[in-house]
This record gives sequence, C-alpha cells and structure tokens, in this order.
Amino acid sequence: MRIYGDSRSGNCYKLQLVLSHLGRTAEWTEVDVLSGYTRTPEFLQLNPTGQIPLLVADDGRTLSQSNAILYYLAQGSALIPVDPWAHAKMLEWQYFEQYTHEPTIAVARFIQSFLGMPEERRAEYEVKRKGGERALGVMEQHLAQAPYFGGSQMTLADISLYAYTHVADEGGFDLSRYSAVCRWLERVAAEPGHLPMQSPGAYLP
Amino acid sequence: MRIYGDSRSGNCYKLQLVLSHLGRTAEWTEVDVLSGYTRTPEFLQLNPTGQIPLLVADDGRTLSQSNAILYYLAQGSALIPVDPWAHAKMLEWQYFEQYTHEPTIAVARFIQSFLGMPEERRAEYEVKRKGGERALGVMEQHLAQAPYFGGSQMTLADISLYAYTHVADEGGFDLSRYSAVCRWLERVAAEPGHLPMQSPGAYLP
Repeated sequence: MRIYGDSRSGNCYKLQLVLSHLGRTAEWTEVDVLSGYTRTPEFLQLNPTGQIPLLVADDGRTLSQSNAILYYLAQGSALIPVDPWAHAKMLEWQYFEQYTHEPTIAVARFIQSFLGMPEERRAEYEVKRKGGERALGVMEQHLAQAPYFGGSQMTLADISLYAYTHVADEGGFDLSRYSAVCRWLERVAAEPGHLPMQSPGAYLP
Repeated sequence: MRIYGDSRSGNCYKLQLVLSHLGRTAEWTEVDVLSGYTRTPEFLQLNPTGQIPLLVADDGRTLSQSNAILYYLAQGSALIPVDPWAHAKMLEWQYFEQYTHEPTIAVARFIQSFLGMPEERRAEYEVKRKGGERALGVMEQHLAQAPYFGGSQMTLADISLYAYTHVADEGGFDLSRYSAVCRWLERVAAEPGHLPMQSPGAYLP
C-alpha cells in the first residue's frame, strides 16, 4: 500500500494520524501540492480529479477522498462506531468537514500560509474566513456538550476535523475564541497513538 | 421520522429517491430554501449549520448532511456494498459528490434557475460552470468503463450523483456532450423503485 500525499496538507495528515492510531504503516510518496505534479498526465492517470491524498493498493487499485481512505483503513476498529445512529453521526461530521470546514479553513490557510496572501486572492480569503468562523462556531456549540464529535469516544470524525482545525491559526483564525474547541484539540492530542503533523518528508516509514 | 427538505433541492431529492428504493416513507416538511426559514433561530436550533435536508427521528434526535442520512436510511440494504473496498469506493464517489460536484453543478443551477442569473453572481457562475464541466468529465471517464459508480450494481453513490446530474441542464450544462453519463442517467431512471424529482409539495406521504 502506497499513499501519495503532501505532509503539510491536513487531508493527507489525516491518513498519517489514523495509521498511527491503528499501529500500521504505508509507503509514502511525498508530493509538493504547489509543484503542479498533481495536474500532470502521469498523476491524472492515477487520479482523474488531480487530488491528494491518493491510496494505491498493492494490486494497483486506487482510492481517493481523504475521508473514504480513512474509512477503508480503519474498518473494523474502534474508530468506527457499530451502532447505526452513532455511525451516521460520524459520517455527518465528516461530510460537514468536507463541505463546510475544509473548503473554508483549509483554503484560508492555503491562501495565507502557502501562497503568502496574494492581493488578487484577498477578497476570496475574506469570504473563506467568514465561512470558517461559522464552522468553528458550529463545532464550539457541539463540543460544549460532548467531548468528541462521535459522542463519548474518539472516532474518525475527530481525526477528520482535527487535521485542519489544529492549524487554523495558519489561516488567520484565533482559536482562543473557541474554548471548547481548544479543550477538544488537547484531548485529541493526548490520545494514545497520536502523531503530530510532520514536516514535509518526515513521514517516511 | 420527519424530514425537512425543499423538493427542488437535489440534496433533499436524494432522500425521497432512497426511500422510494427502500419502499419506506417519512413525514415531510416542505421548506422553501429561498424563504430564509433555514436561517431562523427556530431552525438553527434543530440544525446549527442551517442546512437542509434534516432528519428528525421519533425521539427528537437530528441528523443532517444528505449523504449521511442516505447511509442511515439504507443501512443493511443492497445499496451499501458489504465488501470493504467496494464500500470505500462508494464513499469516495459520495465525497466527490459533496466536494467537487455539488458545490459546482448545484450552485450553477441555483444561480441560473433559482436566482435568475443576477449580474453580480455571473462571475461566480462562470467559475462554477468550469468546475462542473470538470466534474462531469471525471464521471464520463469512469462511466465509460463501468455501468455504475459502485461497479456492477447501483449503490448510494449513484443516488447521490444522480440527484444534481439529471437536472444539470438547469445550470446551463449540455449533458449531450457526456454520452456515458447520459446512458447512466437512463440506467438509474430505469431501476425498479425509481422516483422522479417531484414538484415542490408533491412529496407528501
């Protein structure tokens, strides 16, 4: 099993984090998302959407979409609830992450910290900032009542949401305004098996 | 079980379609997404993200995110593959739908057909059009090699992607350019249990 990923990307870091929790490893091909490689015919043949992370199984089959890969890797583990309602709630937060959280917080971070806030993307950044604050507000409201997104214990929903939330300051977000979110970040980082986000290239098993 | 939804919304139609396939019904509260109701304190108390569809269980618990609701409703049915890889591939296409397909095709349709293409949103529309064409291209490439997104039989991935694809013309997309997509749309519509998108208010079981 090989994963193509950029270690600075939260979507890719999710996979390193879940592998660490599961005590598993994968071969890792570090891809610089700014290099244009994901738009080359070579990569588009592997993944027509041009997105990373991408998992390539030993038999050559491919799987993309970070949260789908998480699900594949973690199947049968305690990170996926068996109870149907709890299972659906986990998916609800993972879809929230991909629809509402990542497209605002990750993109604000990308514009500010990866691109250095070019003037022509400042208006887009401001829209993303507002959307990201709304997403953090929804998380704060939930976490004021429950320790994790799946309820009483950590699930894939926490791994998905941790990835970009814990580096939201790199997108200009002031997390100190969200005290329940801050306590949850500490809780996730204190879980056995936790792995901090690595420097590019550091995850080479 | 009650669902809050706007019958013109593909995300809401997905739930009517899966219920029809499963031979089940739910109480339906028709919500006009343009009315502002989903931003009222009353609705935000039910769903802090302000999004529809929303499922409210008989005991009052709530579940949002269309694809998470689909999963909850269809659990144990043939619409969800048991094989771990096939299951992950289904989720991959459903995340593709929420990340790449819906935010372009559904938004282009909303701007063109719901809002009547106001001048101040034309630039945004053009961006959404381009992204939607890319999404349709990825679908075309897959469907040239397989009858359904899950492989040889229909899964939730097809229901998720059918919802906005079959009305993509209302967003200005010329589907005749995507022949494999057109054949797939016919295939899905010919499945036993299929339910066409209803006029607002028509889905009142």
